[in-house]
Amino acid sequence: MTTHAIATVCLSGTLEDKLDAAAAAGFDGVELFEPDLVASPLPPAEVRARCTDLGLSIDLYQPFRDLDSTDPERFAANLRRAERKFDVMAGLGTDTVLVCSSVGADAVADPDLIAEQLHALAERAHARGLRIAYEALAWGTHVDTYDGSWDVVRRADHPSLGLCLDSFHVLSRGSDPAGIRAIPAAKLFFLQLADAPRLRMDVLQWSRHHRLFPGQGAFDLPAFVEHVLGAGYPGPLSLEVFNDVYRQSDPRRTATDAMRSLLALREQLVRRAAPPDGTVAVRPPAPPALTGHAFTEIAADDAGAARIAGALEALGFVRSGRHRSKPVELFEQGGARVLLNTGPPAAGSEIAALGLESADPPRSAARAAALHAPLLPRRRGPAEADLAAVAAPDGTSVFFCRTDSPDGWRTDFVAAPGAGGTGAGGTGAGFVHGIDHVALAQPYDQFDEAALFYRAVLGMEPEPTAEIAAPFGVVRDRVVTAGGVRLVLTASLLRRGGWAPGVPDPQYIAFGTTDALGTARAARAAGAPLLDIGDNYYDDLDARYALDPDLLAELRELGVMYDRDAGGEYRHFATELLGGRVFLQVVQRSPGYDGHAATDAPVRMAAQRRRRLAGAGGGGQRTSAGRFGSNAQSSTR
Amino acid sequence: MTTHAIATVCLSGTLEDKLDAAAAAGFDGVELFEPDLVASPLPPAEVRARCTDLGLSIDLYQPFRDLDSTDPERFAANLRRAERKFDVMAGLGTDTVLVCSSVGADAVADPDLIAEQLHALAERAHARGLRIAYEALAWGTHVDTYDGSWDVVRRADHPSLGLCLDSFHVLSRGSDPAGIRAIPAAKLFFLQLADAPRLRMDVLQWSRHHRLFPGQGAFDLPAFVEHVLGAGYPGPLSLEVFNDVYRQSDPRRTATDAMRSLLALREQLVRRAAPPDGTVAVRPPAPPALTGHAFTEIAADDAGAARIAGALEALGFVRSGRHRSKPVELFEQGGARVLLNTGPPAAGSEIAALGLESADPPRSAARAAALHAPLLPRRRGPAEADLAAVAAPDGTSVFFCRTDSPDGWRTDFVAAPGAGGTGAGGTGAGFVHGIDHVALAQPYDQFDEAALFYRAVLGMEPEPTAEIAAPFGVVRDRVVTAGGVRLVLTASLLRRGGWAPGVPDPQYIAFGTTDALGTARAARAAGAPLLDIGDNYYDDLDARYALDPDLLAELRELGVMYDRDAGGEYRHFATELLGGRVFLQVVQRSPGYDGHAATDAPVRMAAQRRRRLAGAGGGGQRTSAGRFGSNAQSSTR
Repeated sequence: MTTHAIATVCLSGTLEDKLDAAAAAGFDGVELFEPDLVASPLPPAEVRARCTDLGLSIDLYQPFRDLDSTDPERFAANLRRAERKFDVMAGLGTDTVLVCSSVGADAVADPDLIAEQLHALAERAHARGLRIAYEALAWGTHVDTYDGSWDVVRRADHPSLGLCLDSFHVLSRGSDPAGIRAIPAAKLFFLQLADAPRLRMDVLQWSRHHRLFPGQGAFDLPAFVEHVLGAGYPGPLSLEVFNDVYRQSDPRRTATDAMRSLLALREQLVRRAAPPDGTVAVRPPAPPALTGHAFTEIAADDAGAARIAGALEALGFVRSGRHRSKPVELFEQGGARVLLNTGPPAAGSEIAALGLESADPPRSAARAAALHAPLLPRRRGPAEADLAAVAAPDGTSVFFCRTDSPDGWRTDFVAAPGAGGTGAGGTGAGFVHGIDHVALAQPYDQFDEAALFYRAVLGMEPEPTAEIAAPFGVVRDRVVTAGGVRLVLTASLLRRGGWAPGVPDPQYIAFGTTDALGTARAARAAGAPLLDIGDNYYDDLDARYALDPDLLAELRELGVMYDRDAGGEYRHFATELLGGRVFLQVVQRSPGYDGHAATDAPVRMAAQRRRRLAGAGGGGQRTSAGRFGSNAQSSTR
Repeated sequence: MTTHAIATVCLSGTLEDKLDAAAAAGFDGVELFEPDLVASPLPPAEVRARCTDLGLSIDLYQPFRDLDSTDPERFAANLRRAERKFDVMAGLGTDTVLVCSSVGADAVADPDLIAEQLHALAERAHARGLRIAYEALAWGTHVDTYDGSWDVVRRADHPSLGLCLDSFHVLSRGSDPAGIRAIPAAKLFFLQLADAPRLRMDVLQWSRHHRLFPGQGAFDLPAFVEHVLGAGYPGPLSLEVFNDVYRQSDPRRTATDAMRSLLALREQLVRRAAPPDGTVAVRPPAPPALTGHAFTEIAADDAGAARIAGALEALGFVRSGRHRSKPVELFEQGGARVLLNTGPPAAGSEIAALGLESADPPRSAARAAALHAPLLPRRRGPAEADLAAVAAPDGTSVFFCRTDSPDGWRTDFVAAPGAGGTGAGGTGAGFVHGIDHVALAQPYDQFDEAALFYRAVLGMEPEPTAEIAAPFGVVRDRVVTAGGVRLVLTASLLRRGGWAPGVPDPQYIAFGTTDALGTARAARAAGAPLLDIGDNYYDDLDARYALDPDLLAELRELGVMYDRDAGGEYRHFATELLGGRVFLQVVQRSPGYDGHAATDAPVRMAAQRRRRLAGAGGGGQRTSAGRFGSNAQSSTR
């Protein structure tokens, strides 16, 4: 019996591509979408054989649209059409067909007449050993809620007629799924799952373009599924996600993302003591606590590395260590640690790896593997630590670390000549005390995948997505946090203008300080390539916040930016782009402030463009788009 | 006095980029958007000076949000904020500020109190020689229609307080703009113009992401503007378009597109005898009638050209001519003419030029120039025709031709050895009689620009945009027609999957026939590389249409596809991709059928992918994305 199914419509490509991808990702069933079959050269019986070879059952054929009709001639033609589709199903060896509530102008309004027509269809299906799963589309002409579809199915009262429930259609309408528990299990023929962001738009467009896999959006899928399972639904959990990105992305990648979403959903159901069926899959180990940023690694070419090293030193970092076997240097200040790697072939600079403090690194890695995240192989030298690492969707390596462990990652490094050793803490000028957050620009196609990765694999909490109207295009911005770890995922909507500085999109490391003004003053004195922020920004700050004039003057003098919300205030400043897509920030966060001054990003971007035009060391040089994914060239693998 | 203005928010980049682009495109005024100024290092007085140097006046500073408030302390802070912005305006040398109706939870509901607060602001503005243009946002908390804003302005009754009208806010709400005529001209302070597609979505999201330039969307801008001018509005026509594509595209390109939209709008106003002001711009010559496709030119490398030539010959074309001085061959059949150009550096194959029959080619070219379309320079050889040509947004050359003219484009060609001469008509096997349509895949960023280009510059009619859920991503599809010319513009939403065959997106030429079945039979016998369409497609045709069994059998045998609508039927078949992104179609259209079987496109794409996987001559080979725009390498330039 199928455990994990996926509708072919979730995946890009031809039917053959989709089946291969679903099987490779570990699905054991599919919903076969009619247009995929119509475009395929394989006769139904060969599709069946191929699925069998791939270990896939065909759990649903879909959809059959607009069955009922107020026009008797049209209804008769619809029954004829259904018989032809039953022929197809016989070839496919599948016994269930999805029938959607009608959306046409001639749709039947009278529930008894719809029931009568569905009964007539069910009778024909029964004669061929098939069954009809009736689904209320949220935009059906008359039947548009699950209650409505259940009312019709009850009236029709035929053993070959039951319901298909789709989480999107139920939750997008705001229906209370608790009522599902009252439906007899024998009438629950199929369950389709989709998440979605909360959007204020026409529900049809919302459904056709913006569905997401469970855990990527805003719906409470675990609660929904719990109700369906509570009613006794015995069938598979099946994904049906219409999404513009997934329609054009490599289906193997999408299928892995989809499977991860189901595994994570299943885990939540187990936690809620609502295991979906007897065949509980292997349960991934619970995510160990993440307590902070151990280090962040930047890969750079020699020119980029020189500029980053110079900026770090001007910010008060010291070169405290050198890797035993690789061209990697360690820069430290307080608890902030940056690895600068000139080994891999890199153009400019980019963030290659995140080192995250895990309470149990091996268990973090085991969980990642159980959720289909690619573990990274690693070459160890003698006396080097064995670090567990996985690749994030954008190719960034994520290392699970314990910096305080005697055999931790620091043993890979020897003290740099003249540095004060690699002892923990207290290193450097004392301006910054740690990494506040890291901002990782995602390829647009991987924005939702990345949020699910950090949520499901690492156990982090995503915040809602925000949008920023930035100078080079609209930017999406989503924060994920866990313990002391904060990541800002960004993506350019459509894409960052090709004529903008920093293509692909800039990334940054933000260091925490308790004195942004003092740090900025010292860094400027030391020649740090900090951005200059114009008077207009400060005049606007004054108009908005009526700041203390002395504070305003000092912010203005030092190019420190300022934001505040109900919880507190935030002071921050940034460098120019350092030889590629990476720059550095320093931030001072009052305890109650929970943002990252996203609304200041356009001002910062404009300042970085000015630096580029001024030719300040090539800070905004264009790098080739092909560099996405080269992040996996990490030092510590 | 300003004639054509554009809001800086329409354009991508920093303020400096935007001002340069607006001036280069011929605008003489701007609306200065506050975030652009805040991010700029230029003090207001320097912005003013730069604008003066560029020939730009600053006609509006915008916006000032959420002025009114039920909280007296907040209102006092808002007045203080306004004074700071008045300081900025003094520096800028602009006298009008846009104040939007409030969207906050503390917005005032009582129109008399809003009027009182606006009066207080107007009094302060008056003291500084400034004025307030009050605008109803369509999503304002209480004031959300132009009637509502006019009611408040009337109650406030202050000479420094008037209205800003925005076509989007008025037309998106379905308000009748005729009522604008009743507003005194002295109270019409500013006019903002935006078009938009009809979308069923939250009006704020619609406004912030999907506005278009006039003529690109579904609003009747000429009628709207006529009402405003009829009321006596004396100011500029000013564009305010929030659009995700334009936010990230090269601003020089967007500004040209924007100016073209205003020139075309102005032309329509003149035709309606409602000239906008005294300073009527130079009027472009009316578009000459386009009566048909003279030729279509394909650029190809040697391998691609061989495959295309072979396919053309198998479809019944003959090589009828050879260019006098360039490596271009002419293929003809009836009135269908294809130029095959192996001169420019091309990888694979792509459509390089459209030859369109114009009633008056020089006037077509003059109109194009007046509407800022780039005229293409041309090298002529002795005894070669002087063809007028412009570049379409995607780089395709558009030639204006008179095939029947004694000194027309055919004089460039000498009869090919062994061909029956280059006399008009009757050439070839007689299967196809002309070019039915040409499908040009557009880069996503240029889809709306292209529709406006064909509409405004060539006088063609765009149909509404449709969307197709295709195997490699959602495709937008928009037909533009004029006389015997039909173009299908497509664009992949987001983009065509990088792993799909034919990247960039495929293009095709569709030849008209009166016997698709006979042509397919002959072409297959001659070895044309036609696609094979599987039985599932024909089984579905049968389920849907209950076709005559003999017809169905013949369609099935020959791989001819079938569509029908209320007006008639359509039969069509296609080749594989021919060495690049180009393929050929043959279509049989009954007179009342007005489509192009867009819903069959997914089946065709899947068949093309199969050919590629089967390695059929490299039909689906990937070509570099950098080839966009190389179309301009046309033979006939």
